[in-house]
Amino acid sequence: MSMNPRIAEAIEQLKLRTYYSAYPENPKAYPDEANEAGKLAFQKRLSNRFDELIADESISWLGEEVSPYMQVGLGIEYPVFSVDSLISNAKNARDQWSKISPEKRADILIETLDKVQERFFEIAYATMHTTGQSFVMSFQASGPHANDRALESIALGLQELTRINHEVNWVKNMGKFDLTIKKNFKPISKGVGLVIGCSTFPTWNTVPGVFANLITGNSVIVKPHPKSVLPIAIVVAEMQKVFSSHGLNGNLVQLAVDSLANPITKQLAEHPAVKLIDYTGGSEFGEYVESLPGKTVFTEKAGVNSVILESVGDAKAVFGNLAFSASLYSGQMCTAPQNIFVPADGIATAEGHLSFDEVVSGIQQAIVGMAENPKMGPFTLGAIQNDMTKNRVNDTLSSLGKSAVEAQVVNPEFTDARIMTPSVVAISEQDRNLWNKECFGPIMFIVKVENSAKALELAAFNAENKGAITCLCYSTNEGYCAEVEERMNSVFTPVSFNFTGAAFVNQHAAFSDFHVTGGNPSGNATFTDALFINRRFVWVGNRYA
Amino acid sequence: MSMNPRIAEAIEQLKLRTYYSAYPENPKAYPDEANEAGKLAFQKRLSNRFDELIADESISWLGEEVSPYMQVGLGIEYPVFSVDSLISNAKNARDQWSKISPEKRADILIETLDKVQERFFEIAYATMHTTGQSFVMSFQASGPHANDRALESIALGLQELTRINHEVNWVKNMGKFDLTIKKNFKPISKGVGLVIGCSTFPTWNTVPGVFANLITGNSVIVKPHPKSVLPIAIVVAEMQKVFSSHGLNGNLVQLAVDSLANPITKQLAEHPAVKLIDYTGGSEFGEYVESLPGKTVFTEKAGVNSVILESVGDAKAVFGNLAFSASLYSGQMCTAPQNIFVPADGIATAEGHLSFDEVVSGIQQAIVGMAENPKMGPFTLGAIQNDMTKNRVNDTLSSLGKSAVEAQVVNPEFTDARIMTPSVVAISEQDRNLWNKECFGPIMFIVKVENSAKALELAAFNAENKGAITCLCYSTNEGYCAEVEERMNSVFTPVSFNFTGAAFVNQHAAFSDFHVTGGNPSGNATFTDALFINRRFVWVGNRYA
Repeated sequence: MSMNPRIAEAIEQLKLRTYYSAYPENPKAYPDEANEAGKLAFQKRLSNRFDELIADESISWLGEEVSPYMQVGLGIEYPVFSVDSLISNAKNARDQWSKISPEKRADILIETLDKVQERFFEIAYATMHTTGQSFVMSFQASGPHANDRALESIALGLQELTRINHEVNWVKNMGKFDLTIKKNFKPISKGVGLVIGCSTFPTWNTVPGVFANLITGNSVIVKPHPKSVLPIAIVVAEMQKVFSSHGLNGNLVQLAVDSLANPITKQLAEHPAVKLIDYTGGSEFGEYVESLPGKTVFTEKAGVNSVILESVGDAKAVFGNLAFSASLYSGQMCTAPQNIFVPADGIATAEGHLSFDEVVSGIQQAIVGMAENPKMGPFTLGAIQNDMTKNRVNDTLSSLGKSAVEAQVVNPEFTDARIMTPSVVAISEQDRNLWNKECFGPIMFIVKVENSAKALELAAFNAENKGAITCLCYSTNEGYCAEVEERMNSVFTPVSFNFTGAAFVNQHAAFSDFHVTGGNPSGNATFTDALFINRRFVWVGNRYA
Repeated sequence: MSMNPRIAEAIEQLKLRTYYSAYPENPKAYPDEANEAGKLAFQKRLSNRFDELIADESISWLGEEVSPYMQVGLGIEYPVFSVDSLISNAKNARDQWSKISPEKRADILIETLDKVQERFFEIAYATMHTTGQSFVMSFQASGPHANDRALESIALGLQELTRINHEVNWVKNMGKFDLTIKKNFKPISKGVGLVIGCSTFPTWNTVPGVFANLITGNSVIVKPHPKSVLPIAIVVAEMQKVFSSHGLNGNLVQLAVDSLANPITKQLAEHPAVKLIDYTGGSEFGEYVESLPGKTVFTEKAGVNSVILESVGDAKAVFGNLAFSASLYSGQMCTAPQNIFVPADGIATAEGHLSFDEVVSGIQQAIVGMAENPKMGPFTLGAIQNDMTKNRVNDTLSSLGKSAVEAQVVNPEFTDARIMTPSVVAISEQDRNLWNKECFGPIMFIVKVENSAKALELAAFNAENKGAITCLCYSTNEGYCAEVEERMNSVFTPVSFNFTGAAFVNQHAAFSDFHVTGGNPSGNATFTDALFINRRFVWVGNRYA
């Protein structure tokens, strides 16, 4: 069977790692009417049952999503299934699917992405009103960027599944005769995969595991966060339809909706038929998942990301870049910086020396300035996904005798949006209880440290002990940059250097950037390296004399 | 840097999986005088200190190897090091080695294999007199076959380390301008690797992990079994010399010799600097190693290998093949069959029906006939590595009111060899305590089962619950073969069908057969798939704006 040219291209891109995207990220690249149609489709769902999923065996319906923009419940209900029926369906579907060739699987999976692409705008509005992301981020992250990450799984999957010949005639000359053995090599899928989603990136963080499981012949149960169901529900529905259209069991991928009050995640995770678990979320539950015996587990947990400020060229450009990275989706990205380590005696800039306090106020002003810019603020900050995040930041601030920064941010469309401008708090090296743990949400600590060596030491210490997904370093000193790269890489943390302009530390591009290294406590896996695929199946070779 | 053509060839062979060997396996392919010279070199070592290892920091010398052929101690002593100095040397050596390019590492590692090749005969005699393997098996397994497996690690390692571009110019068109980011991608080694050897295959089972660690930039401490040190000591010594000749720290690979009475394996395994552990040996210790937190672990543990006899063509050829597989190194291979499941009403053959009892006696006679053949017996059986193996088999037999088969096996060269012809015991399906666990050594159970469906059921049950490295099936019924393949593969066990003549289930050829699947309790890793390499390092990507 020959390889789908789109997948062959994607495989090549995985090696090149230059810019590549198979799905246009600009909403304007899509038909004019698509945006309005998507919005309307979303609006029609409100206060209705989501009826696109296979639901014959549903035992009830529920939904508890709340729009962070409107702060009212969406009223959408999803079918609820018993754990037994989810598992039983998943086992049956896997038995069928695992017999299909990897090439055919890839073709079908690519087709599901085409169908998902037709619903990018609807998914975007669904993402906005569950996560609080801005429209553009919702569109890009849950649409093209998620599809690109899914395609990455399909492509790398097919590459790995076909990296050896499946049928071999093994002939060994034994002197007087040839010994001939016919061999076959089969990539046997592990079983049922469970993919546990998070509330902030319900599709982007979910689809890599879903498609990696499917291309390798496993079936999938998606357990979305109860507050962020709709975006992935649309994706799962489209996938089920494509599977059914090929005469396959649509339950190859299922949506397991539960509620915050009655979660079923542990029941699913601990079920003996579930062999694979992908998880995105907090560290505590992540460690529980990692500890389950007999499971192959892929996690993205919390990290504490650092910025190291040693010296800069254009301070204004740096503060602007930092302000944007901190403000993008109000610091609710797992890649957002939390701690900025700055030497006590300040930093050198192209326009002269800046004291520590000047650095702090420069960053603060840049954030507030951006937040209050009506063309940027509301569309960068988006909304806070849930009250817990807002309360966590407020509690932290009040424990320090401070209150949240009060910027005048007005969202012209959603006056009730849950908005919070990132606060910047200057602390000292001694405030270890603040900089040595994740404080998820719109808050950054600027940590006054003895010198730049100490800045690196603490950033590396955090990465090694608490995990880090990103590190951003500003330095005009090449030797120092090399030191930072080596030291942070040694604790398996990538470093971005001197980002200004349109380069942001938060952004991890498919087909180029690895997302999470898997080498520090922020997670044990990567989007997308060979392990992300190969751990999902087992090579078995049979021999016929 | 261009790729070494020998490695490029090996990489191609990994895909093809047809017959390939880079090191001739026939002793006669080597210079005439090499055999005698190797034997002499081995003999000179007896009752002497092994002085080829870097030993400046040795704190004492010890050795407790006993020749299974002479049943006297070899009297060879090896330098002993403190755990602290082993770890400290390994950390230093890794810091240096990890900065060298993968291509250069591969060249140096290939050179170590060339040097090892020059000592194949000496290693062969060392292997004979520590493991009890026959001369030919000792030569092949510890010489060319081990080198081939090492080359496999180097080749797959270089393939994985270079599968993506390491330096990338990432350019994204942003409409009015191009965003350009320079990226580098680095495969960062995990740290110090510990490779724990076994007594029966001291180099073959050890070098895959050693070379996989080294090609990926880690350093290695080899902890040999105290009773099988010399073969791997010679390999480590040659490697140290090559590293030193390149101005590198020779301690990049170290030998950590201990004694049965005072083992240091746990101290090493639990040391925080040890990030990788390769282990071959019993299941209990293997499970301990797998349970260690924060380690990347590769195990080959015990399994219970099955033969399924459903129907055969030439019964004599089948019994002969089974007899050889059971007798090869006296059943001390991890790939040797243990249980033969035979339907209670016997089997069909080309020459008519054979009752269960006829099958049992046919196999028994084939084993005794081969053992007593002076040209085959002693050279197939070799010797029993240690008394525990012999006692285990005798105890099992006596608990059944039986004694070991008494075949007249005479080893013309070693009259004191510890020889034991494999015993064959007919048992029933109800004797679960016998067929449901490994009884390592020269014993096979022929299990009378209801029918061929039951035979498959029990073989699969064992593989799933106790692990299996091989399964051998004899059937002239294509439908049954397909069933066996599917069912055994579903518990991640490879099946060999209808092996007669020179095809033996025990043999796993490098560059073609995967050794252990990693999918059942017999081990969590494979020689050699992509996981065996990729789990040893972490991709980290840095970005420069």
